[in-house]
Amino acid sequence: MNLDKFLQAYQGKKIIITGGLGFIGSSIAIKLAGIAREITLVDSLIPEYGGNVFNIEPVKDKVKINIADVRDEASMNALVKDKDFMFNMAGTLSHIDSMTNPYLDLEINCRSQLTILEACRKNNLDIKIVYAGTRGEYGKIKYSPVDELHPLIPTDVNGINKIAGEFYHILYNDVYGIRATSLRLTNTFGPRHQMKHSKQGYLNWFLRLAMDDQEITIYDEGKPKRDFTYIDDVVSAFIIACASDEANGHVYNIGSGRGVSIFESAQAVINAAKSGRIKHVVYPADKKAIEIGDYTADYSKFKNQFGWDTEISFEEGLNRSYEYYREYKQNYW
Amino acid sequence: MNLDKFLQAYQGKKIIITGGLGFIGSSIAIKLAGIAREITLVDSLIPEYGGNVFNIEPVKDKVKINIADVRDEASMNALVKDKDFMFNMAGTLSHIDSMTNPYLDLEINCRSQLTILEACRKNNLDIKIVYAGTRGEYGKIKYSPVDELHPLIPTDVNGINKIAGEFYHILYNDVYGIRATSLRLTNTFGPRHQMKHSKQGYLNWFLRLAMDDQEITIYDEGKPKRDFTYIDDVVSAFIIACASDEANGHVYNIGSGRGVSIFESAQAVINAAKSGRIKHVVYPADKKAIEIGDYTADYSKFKNQFGWDTEISFEEGLNRSYEYYREYKQNYW
Repeated sequence: MNLDKFLQAYQGKKIIITGGLGFIGSSIAIKLAGIAREITLVDSLIPEYGGNVFNIEPVKDKVKINIADVRDEASMNALVKDKDFMFNMAGTLSHIDSMTNPYLDLEINCRSQLTILEACRKNNLDIKIVYAGTRGEYGKIKYSPVDELHPLIPTDVNGINKIAGEFYHILYNDVYGIRATSLRLTNTFGPRHQMKHSKQGYLNWFLRLAMDDQEITIYDEGKPKRDFTYIDDVVSAFIIACASDEANGHVYNIGSGRGVSIFESAQAVINAAKSGRIKHVVYPADKKAIEIGDYTADYSKFKNQFGWDTEISFEEGLNRSYEYYREYKQNYW
Repeated sequence: MNLDKFLQAYQGKKIIITGGLGFIGSSIAIKLAGIAREITLVDSLIPEYGGNVFNIEPVKDKVKINIADVRDEASMNALVKDKDFMFNMAGTLSHIDSMTNPYLDLEINCRSQLTILEACRKNNLDIKIVYAGTRGEYGKIKYSPVDELHPLIPTDVNGINKIAGEFYHILYNDVYGIRATSLRLTNTFGPRHQMKHSKQGYLNWFLRLAMDDQEITIYDEGKPKRDFTYIDDVVSAFIIACASDEANGHVYNIGSGRGVSIFESAQAVINAAKSGRIKHVVYPADKKAIEIGDYTADYSKFKNQFGWDTEISFEEGLNRSYEYYREYKQNYW
């Protein structure tokens, strides 16, 4: 995969990344620092979410940090002006939190997206936006691998609100000509993911437990399969999508196409960390109610259109993650 | 169609109708008054929306009016207690308003639905809810007649938010066991529809213009087809769906299956009113951007499962509407 021709699109351009101090946002910033003319990272640094100033340590002199909440209309009106590209990563992905506090999930994942898009409509019709969608929009899996035509049967409030956020983007693309693309991600993992709790994806949490030589709790046999995508591959997909007008108004699955059971993923984490162990417990009812079944992504639409594919295997990604957190543990634990 | 067996389910029961002073809500109340033990009509009577106390004139001594906003958590917590059935009609359907003020649409159509469902989750897990969905959830029509498997490609913020509202209901059905059904309606018309503006469906507005012997404005040739459903048929569908546990967790199209062009509908209105005339103008760009194409409902899922069908033709419905508004004009103009 030749990323260079896509990277050229960012030369001399102004970029805004919402959730820019988070896992994926900071990784995109690192990739584009030195190419883009200006990179503005918008983050509210809400505790418990994914923002961490250390994430952008390698490029801290090449990016601007702007602390702001994407729900704030005045801030967003000012921030989107004159930007060429937006990577719109702000949002939450906690399934359980969205069920216990659905209003907050609505605020963060629906209202904020309207605020961002309205800011562009009023101040910058020429911006190109890539939205971070999620496999949670599909919800209950009817067939696998899952393509983009799979019905949307969300199993939690977060999935519903993420659908609304994505649909707003496609709507503003179609009606107002604000170019927008959505990438539906699945279990992105790797360096710079927050390591304080399991609510934004369990793999990072498994890795922390293993590195601390603790027990990894698996529900029942841990059979449901997930499709894990390494951060560098996800960053490439965002860079391609944002640089490509052929992607405007489209929704794409991003994934590796490989299903790994939760049990297998725990074993792989233990192998990478060379410590930790597995403990089986009964599946809690509240979590079982929103279990989606096996998920692997059919990402052929994006692959065929742009030549994108994953380059880092699950095992290699875990090794790199382990090395990163071993070195910078004090910034994430 | 034998509605009696379904009506029996409401004997001695307590019913709550959100948007209960509106067009469909009040019509359901009239049908169930004298059968149900108690009918509570919740309405905020926001000017410009559809609520009108005169709507329930024939049954005013048999129902309770409770003025409240469905966005208010405390009110809803109290109101849902001890109710057996909820007809959840509160919401807005203005396509243009949702584009000019997307935040208000989000409040009314998403936040309020979470408030209603959370109130049930905390206070009344045994209630059965029927949600008023809309063909606007399908948006851009890919094929017609449209069945429930048609993709959701909403063309305005309202369509997106109505999808979210519906999905919340199905989610709470699946996860919490709060029985819920959604009926996706299309251009419901008839007595008790508000007649003050065209934002909640244009047919009533055409009828007012014709009755006032004014010009009816048609964009271009008025070719797009719509599926009109007479209020009595829609009321029957709600009564069946709410009484039937086989409908729990399901979404159904409701419609007549007959496509009538906007031009033809204007002619039919003029025939019914025996006054008015048509004027053609160029399609305004903002409205053309969200035109959906021809829509007719494939309602075979609901018909096959429950034996429901329309009984009042478009022309007969218009005649009845004309007679109603001729008699009660002073309460609607």
